[in-house]
Amino acid sequence: MTTFRQIKSDVIGRITAGEWGPDATLPSETELAARYGCARATVNRALRELADDGVLERRRKSGTRVRAAPVRQARFEIPLVRREVEGQGAAYRYALVERAVMAAPDWLRARMALEPEARVLHLVCMHYANASPYQYEDRWIALDTLPAAEAEDFAATAPTAWLLATIPFSQVEISFAATEADAALAAHLGCAEGAALFFAERSTWFDGKPVTFVRLVHRPGHRVTARY
Amino acid sequence: MTTFRQIKSDVIGRITAGEWGPDATLPSETELAARYGCARATVNRALRELADDGVLERRRKSGTRVRAAPVRQARFEIPLVRREVEGQGAAYRYALVERAVMAAPDWLRARMALEPEARVLHLVCMHYANASPYQYEDRWIALDTLPAAEAEDFAATAPTAWLLATIPFSQVEISFAATEADAALAAHLGCAEGAALFFAERSTWFDGKPVTFVRLVHRPGHRVTARY
Repeated sequence: MTTFRQIKSDVIGRITAGEWGPDATLPSETELAARYGCARATVNRALRELADDGVLERRRKSGTRVRAAPVRQARFEIPLVRREVEGQGAAYRYALVERAVMAAPDWLRARMALEPEARVLHLVCMHYANASPYQYEDRWIALDTLPAAEAEDFAATAPTAWLLATIPFSQVEISFAATEADAALAAHLGCAEGAALFFAERSTWFDGKPVTFVRLVHRPGHRVTARY
Repeated sequence: MTTFRQIKSDVIGRITAGEWGPDATLPSETELAARYGCARATVNRALRELADDGVLERRRKSGTRVRAAPVRQARFEIPLVRREVEGQGAAYRYALVERAVMAAPDWLRARMALEPEARVLHLVCMHYANASPYQYEDRWIALDTLPAAEAEDFAATAPTAWLLATIPFSQVEISFAATEADAALAAHLGCAEGAALFFAERSTWFDGKPVTFVRLVHRPGHRVTARY
């Protein structure tokens, strides 16, 4: 007599051998029970567990199908750098490298869709894990949208923490890419000039108005990972 | 008399000025109507529209609050490389560079949690956009899990397309990082040795068994973008 475990293993074997591809419809439970020489309840349990595993999809009318490949999406958690560092068991330290109020440079006006005369706060910050460079932050805040930022010195509070406590972000765009370390990045991150560095760029709007643009450059070897 | 547009703009002004931070509770509609010298219905419309914009959060019992920063997640669509290239208006071409069946190398056994004697199919492929190198694919398929792959020559069909048509993926892990182009990558992608390249790595399991591991290395300048 066939057990539900043997049925599960047989169904998986047929899928991986290519007999039943994605979206293929399986025979009915009655047919499968006859084929395996077992009770329909045994087949039912095997198919139900395979559906729970995400292998099969059961529909009342169209029967049981092999679940097609899922939507190809990856969802990344974007932790605060402090939490990321502390989550790795290291001591976190923040340092402000540079702070300046200025007219927005042209590339930034284009990037953030700022007004011609827009003033911005430019911050360069370093984040350390156990005294080793961990992340370089190049941050721009639109003062027309967020005038309160000008009164902040950011000497002790990292911009991300201050922004999260100050303003609800309605729209965010994030990009991931790679860049070669220039002299300044190499000096700050303690790596060779030309080293391949992974970075994230994030643009944030509030109620349709540009709030902030940031480039977060990670030390060599950094990776972000998602499961689904 | 205050219009609902003036109320919206005043509420946004108080948020960006720091008066009302994330999670702050707004005065009641009756209080706001008195303050703005208008009908309660006008206040109601302003708050409703700001809630629709994602700025405020309305709860029946606790009233209206400034919406706190959203869960910090980024969701990336992972398109098939053919669709990505064609979506940019370029002609797509696939080429198989190398195909070999072998015992899994140690690093791969560790990476995919393969059995000691596991056999794998190794494929190196190139993807082109208008005859320019677009993506380098270094692919490994576990033949114990997916024996059907050994009969495929992958001369005309890219592994991803074949895998999607063959097997439903139940679990996927994806990483993004940066690497320096070695001599082989530089030759295949037509860039200088040492160039910073963005890559994705993807491991796939089916019903708990390792199916495939792939490293997709992009030409210089490539970025992936998500909005939320």
